Amino acid sequence: MLGIDPGLSRCGYAVVAPGRRGRGVASAQARALGVIRTSPEQETPYRLAELKHELTALLDEFRPAVISVERIFFQNNVRTAVGVAQASGLALVLGAERGLVVAQYSPSEVKSVVAGDGRADKKQMQAMVQSLLGLERPPRPADAADAAALALCHLAYDPRLKQAAVPTLGSVGVR
Amino acid sequence: MLGIDPGLSRCGYAVVAPGRRGRGVASAQARALGVIRTSPEQETPYRLAELKHELTALLDEFRPAVISVERIFFQNNVRTAVGVAQASGLALVLGAERGLVVAQYSPSEVKSVVAGDGRADKKQMQAMVQSLLGLERPPRPADAADAAALALCHLAYDPRLKQAAVPTLGSVGVR
Repeated sequence: MLGIDPGLSRCGYAVVAPGRRGRGVASAQARALGVIRTSPEQETPYRLAELKHELTALLDEFRPAVISVERIFFQNNVRTAVGVAQASGLALVLGAERGLVVAQYSPSEVKSVVAGDGRADKKQMQAMVQSLLGLERPPRPADAADAAALALCHLAYDPRLKQAAVPTLGSVGVR
Repeated sequence: MLGIDPGLSRCGYAVVAPGRRGRGVASAQARALGVIRTSPEQETPYRLAELKHELTALLDEFRPAVISVERIFFQNNVRTAVGVAQASGLALVLGAERGLVVAQYSPSEVKSVVAGDGRADKKQMQAMVQSLLGLERPPRPADAADAAALALCHLAYDPRLKQAAVPTLGSVGVR
């Protein structure tokens, strides 16, 4: 499962494995967590090409079955919105071309599924991701945590992986 | 020269050749003009993959040296803005990956260069493109005309192709 928090300056990624059969998200594991950065000094076409190159490398290395990408809206952050949309488009098209399951979730969907609260803040999300993935520290930067949350959100929705009694990760993950 | 008016439902394209050496835009010729459509019934990732496939086919067939893409802003049309940005990103990255000159022009730049008026309407732009390219009819739909205008705008800016005495196409092209 590859989670992508799209962006042109910082694109968060997280490779998450579902863990032991039947235990769903409760035993999910992070295989890779990080951020792809491209330089604001370069022009957009070359930044997009670099991002595509890095995303392709991740797909080649980890061969995920699913890519889970943040769904983009244009209410806020108009200044960076074009780059974010372009980055998300790249992730979506790379997933579709490889025949992956391509899922999109809105930020509030991810927050309510992963933290049990559609308006959870960055710190809550980082703590929740740390807890669910059994990490020693909260993942940083926040973009990597958001990417992990996107992967976990899909894990929680996937009927093959979900425990029937678990409505949201929030209620499982807080230990 | 490939002009692209990006969009997910309708992506205009125009392949324009500069024409005779030294005559610049005054003898430019259209090699191909049209619109790539993807179905709104399909999900975004698959529409983007189809668009990428079609753009790649155009690049393979015509081997342009330059791709000229409309620069996206998010003041208007918020409903379709994400798809437009994603489509533009695809065009930019395909151009960058092939080592083309990748140019972006805002709608008002294109209008002022091609029609001599930054607020020219669709009909004026279609008439201007028809005149400059010596077409029998105004190009339709408007997306194809806009794509041609993007290519012509770059032609007019390119110092190797531009006639020194011609400040805008508008003043040359109205015959």
